Amino acid sequence: MVTSEIRVALAGLGTVGTAVVRLLQEEAARYREEIGVPLRLVLVLDRSYRRKDVSWLASPVTFTDSVEEFLRTPADILVELLGGTDPAHQIITTGLKRGQAVVTANKLLLAKWARAYFQLAREHKAYLGFEAAVAGGIPILRVLRRALFADRIIRLRGILNGTCNFILSEMADSGRRFSDVLKEAQVRGYAEADPELDISGRDTADKLAILSLLAFGRSVDPEQIPTLGISMISPVDLMYARRLECALRLLGVAERFGETVSLRVSPFFVSKRLPLSAVSGVLNAVEVVTPRLGSTVFSGRGAGGDPTSVSVVADILNAALWKQGQAPFYLQPFFHRHEPSQQEKGTWDQEKENGKVEGEAGQLPPFPEEYPFYIRFFVKDRPGIIAAAANTLARYQININSVWQEPWSDHRNLPFVMTVESTPFLTMQQALSELSQLDFNNVPPLALPMLV
Amino acid sequence: MVTSEIRVALAGLGTVGTAVVRLLQEEAARYREEIGVPLRLVLVLDRSYRRKDVSWLASPVTFTDSVEEFLRTPADILVELLGGTDPAHQIITTGLKRGQAVVTANKLLLAKWARAYFQLAREHKAYLGFEAAVAGGIPILRVLRRALFADRIIRLRGILNGTCNFILSEMADSGRRFSDVLKEAQVRGYAEADPELDISGRDTADKLAILSLLAFGRSVDPEQIPTLGISMISPVDLMYARRLECALRLLGVAERFGETVSLRVSPFFVSKRLPLSAVSGVLNAVEVVTPRLGSTVFSGRGAGGDPTSVSVVADILNAALWKQGQAPFYLQPFFHRHEPSQQEKGTWDQEKENGKVEGEAGQLPPFPEEYPFYIRFFVKDRPGIIAAAANTLARYQININSVWQEPWSDHRNLPFVMTVESTPFLTMQQALSELSQLDFNNVPPLALPMLV
Repeated sequence: MVTSEIRVALAGLGTVGTAVVRLLQEEAARYREEIGVPLRLVLVLDRSYRRKDVSWLASPVTFTDSVEEFLRTPADILVELLGGTDPAHQIITTGLKRGQAVVTANKLLLAKWARAYFQLAREHKAYLGFEAAVAGGIPILRVLRRALFADRIIRLRGILNGTCNFILSEMADSGRRFSDVLKEAQVRGYAEADPELDISGRDTADKLAILSLLAFGRSVDPEQIPTLGISMISPVDLMYARRLECALRLLGVAERFGETVSLRVSPFFVSKRLPLSAVSGVLNAVEVVTPRLGSTVFSGRGAGGDPTSVSVVADILNAALWKQGQAPFYLQPFFHRHEPSQQEKGTWDQEKENGKVEGEAGQLPPFPEEYPFYIRFFVKDRPGIIAAAANTLARYQININSVWQEPWSDHRNLPFVMTVESTPFLTMQQALSELSQLDFNNVPPLALPMLV
Repeated sequence: MVTSEIRVALAGLGTVGTAVVRLLQEEAARYREEIGVPLRLVLVLDRSYRRKDVSWLASPVTFTDSVEEFLRTPADILVELLGGTDPAHQIITTGLKRGQAVVTANKLLLAKWARAYFQLAREHKAYLGFEAAVAGGIPILRVLRRALFADRIIRLRGILNGTCNFILSEMADSGRRFSDVLKEAQVRGYAEADPELDISGRDTADKLAILSLLAFGRSVDPEQIPTLGISMISPVDLMYARRLECALRLLGVAERFGETVSLRVSPFFVSKRLPLSAVSGVLNAVEVVTPRLGSTVFSGRGAGGDPTSVSVVADILNAALWKQGQAPFYLQPFFHRHEPSQQEKGTWDQEKENGKVEGEAGQLPPFPEEYPFYIRFFVKDRPGIIAAAANTLARYQININSVWQEPWSDHRNLPFVMTVESTPFLTMQQALSELSQLDFNNVPPLALPMLV
């Protein structure tokens, strides 16, 4: 279909939305050459548009604060940058049901609803772009679905949260405490006023769920992904990381074991020899391993208005090419190309009707991963501590690799560290639970997996 | 268009061709799900197929050693993996003229003929995939044309030749001489029996020309790219690289200056703080800089049958989707989307008729790049050498940053090193030419740009 222009309606003039409108304005001439027709911004939805400075707009844009008006306005591409669940979910589903192109950066919704959105897109021959939902400026979703899909992905590891990576990098460089560095991150705008979603690892889990869907064709409820955040990380851990020639990184890991895929979010000790250890500050990175490619690494800026706007606009341009019959809805994993069974379809439609669908992700498989572990204690010093810990580990058949106890001034709160050889995650958790019972602990001991 | 199967004809059963056929065989079921119909290998062209062990083929494949038979056989996708110019060029142009999908890994031909191929593809509504021609397993061409095209690319730097990167990494680790490490690379299969194309930097220049076309829309004759290889690198240079906290890397660099694009292939001193310094051994990497993304880095295996086969098969799968109307010919830069002017068209058609088209790349602009430089001398020691060199540099207004002269046993062939502050490339070349005239040199001094 050849049209004389492509009409874009955009919801949400926050940091990313503003950067998107600016980019569309600044590169308008080039985009027109790329897609053959001009993109026209027909409407911007923003609740507080009256209070925003839009003097930089080169040509007038119509604003509204009404979702109804937004959805009534004829458009080829709906760009949803409101975040949150409502009315974002309403905009996405309405657009897909009408067969429009929908572009969103909403990782929360995608992590929960991707399967449902794919199904709507397929039923209504709509387009859904969400490159910006994971790893901001890194085009990892396109790479997975249009390039690496030729091989079978074995494993994917990502630094997916710039806030956490900034905090861990800064703690490593400065030796300061978590709470101090978090405050600095908030002042510098790298962390939200409420940082819980980031530092708990839940934001990483949301992104990992999306990546897992595209890499392995498995959808999973992000709340079911075992997730450990970074708030318990102590300067002591970063000191030992340096001794062990490692960097401390919050990783989302998805790994294929036979027919199952195991997912996990945790701080990892990453050997300085591995490329993810070199990704510091607010950068994101994703490492994908396939049998034939070995390790391929993609790194870049993962958040912020400007980098995210590039991925949003790439989706808009691809949607415009799709609209003209020149590009596919590339993200759809293959198992969504096919018609759903009557049972699948019936269940989804019925639950949709009843408003009961809250994401229909599969159950997680058990966790067969094995890693060497770093175990850190803070103890009231007395004789027999190492013996007690070693006895517990021995009962679980866990081999101690090294014991580290550096000189320390406070004997009432003495840190010491053990590293152990490769151990199944479940075994380590059981042993850790028993180690926590020992009476010399001031805080529960911490066990972190190591990539060496 | 919906078809019942996609017919693939493949030319060249060498390392890559064999890996492609194996991959198509091993993942046949999954590909069928991805594209909805089976891929069928209808014919393999190979001059010496009778001498090859094909016992691993699960189902019989028809072989031929006749190019004519190959081109006569009905197929949807032609895969050209012969390398060289003939009959590869004939297969590519014949396929494009018939509106078939053509997939090739032939960087030599692409570097010279990409514009002509794009024009044929446009005229005849054909598909051309050549992801495997640059950086083997890294999907850099797709990333440039489907993701990063949303921003304006400022600069691109690549480690594009695994042979050179292996040699430089190995020289750095072992302190051995270039010729010794080259021999080891040949024994280990990382270097060709005739390594000239790799070590001269010409292979890197070919790949850089292709990247430049896709990143900047500028085609350039690779033979016009200023190219310095690695054969003059001495263990002394790697010793000083370590002192300067740099790695030595052969880079292809393309950089936008206003409306021109400057290209260069040279060994660079790369600061250990920069991500390209960490890419060692046979790995490849490409760093792309845009105003909004800053630096994005893609790294992975750049050569070898298995990694290259993944990119070839990704092209085959995308071509199959294109064949079914589900995917675009994504690589075509925007300026090739439009009809050529009558003049352009007339010239091309006429030259085509006359067999005179030998690549129609543009002229290179002048080189406005400035870098700090590393300058290394091997001299017959006597008083006044540093003064003479410093005087020459002063006449060119080049600021010396440091002078290094380590203890050395052989005073008749003493290495010493200067680093100078940021200097235009042309100025440095003129000064270097004058420095070469000084009578104390045993070999012409070497000046290498530094990324710090």
